[in-house]
Amino acid sequence: MIKLNHSEILALEKYYRANLINKIAGYKTGNLIATKSKEEISNVAVFNSVVHIGANPPYLGFMMRPLTVERQTYDNLKSLGFYTINGITTQIAEKAHACSAKYDNKTSEFDTVCITEQYIGDFPVPFVGESNIKIGLSFLEQHEIKANGTILIIGKIENIYLPDNAIKEDGDLELENLDSVAIGGLDTYYKAEKIARYEYVRPHQKIKIIPD
Amino acid sequence: MIKLNHSEILALEKYYRANLINKIAGYKTGNLIATKSKEEISNVAVFNSVVHIGANPPYLGFMMRPLTVERQTYDNLKSLGFYTINGITTQIAEKAHACSAKYDNKTSEFDTVCITEQYIGDFPVPFVGESNIKIGLSFLEQHEIKANGTILIIGKIENIYLPDNAIKEDGDLELENLDSVAIGGLDTYYKAEKIARYEYVRPHQKIKIIPD
Repeated sequence: MIKLNHSEILALEKYYRANLINKIAGYKTGNLIATKSKEEISNVAVFNSVVHIGANPPYLGFMMRPLTVERQTYDNLKSLGFYTINGITTQIAEKAHACSAKYDNKTSEFDTVCITEQYIGDFPVPFVGESNIKIGLSFLEQHEIKANGTILIIGKIENIYLPDNAIKEDGDLELENLDSVAIGGLDTYYKAEKIARYEYVRPHQKIKIIPD
Repeated sequence: MIKLNHSEILALEKYYRANLINKIAGYKTGNLIATKSKEEISNVAVFNSVVHIGANPPYLGFMMRPLTVERQTYDNLKSLGFYTINGITTQIAEKAHACSAKYDNKTSEFDTVCITEQYIGDFPVPFVGESNIKIGLSFLEQHEIKANGTILIIGKIENIYLPDNAIKEDGDLELENLDSVAIGGLDTYYKAEKIARYEYVRPHQKIKIIPD
């Protein structure tokens, strides 16, 4: 067994430590977050940290790295108050990864990485045309982590767009059929295969599988 | 295309909405968080919300639902100051789901769901014996989301335990070889297959795949 304590982790080479610690919690959400600056320049960035905050009312959160360098996503969503979360598909995984490069903010990043900038209704921020799961949000609140300046951004879900027939009778989504990817660490993209969907479980009851 | 706005989401049937909103952000981390009460009763609970907070120093976060009902994980980690995050494997996915049932806190939940309660060194909280990825943490800080009372818990990584040869030369972990699962929504477990691991990308450079 490999054992590493806190001091040994601190002593690791920088990139080795970043790879290890970023991947250690397992598969993560894979999303592109799109924003727009006051100057009407669109930005799109890859995030692996979207978390569920609540269903009623519907809220999502995501982690933003410390504001020690320019963060276009943060500046834009704070100034306009809106942003979109778009599920990365296997088809655009490579393009999504290209969004992690640090481009200037003079031209639309959608154009730069050849992803479709899609406007739906009167929502002021673009969605990713190629995404099957598209969520429009308004900024709600933020929390700065004292330990390292990382920021949790909370948004209210304003609009959801999904392909026809994507939602099952009980509200379930089949992420594998929506071509969703999971992200590992900073750089690895995965497709997934369902093991099982289990029924809500009460103490000492046998677990039942929900059929497709 | 299916379109749902905020009001339409609020009007959905409760379980339908919970299924939909919990799954909409994509595949999530699948972990068992173990704690121990002052009375020395162990608890283990399934969480799909572990997020990366920082690598240097190494921190992880996770979301805790509002404290409107008893939350054994919260009470225990606040009173003892330590907890463990253990990666769910495909082998224990069903047992992990059994941990989502609301058991009383009179006996060890490890025994109740037949998961191995493993102590390593002098760490005061048990790890999950069957997990390949085992992380011991100390509680650092918490942030309450004003919108709905959900709590972000931040912990400092004190110890990491991994199988021999699990860490590659550059610090990378192959989650698929560690038998890790991803979780969708509240009830669906997945195994994953790597699409690609991409090199760090600079603007306007061609994206390169990192070979196995």
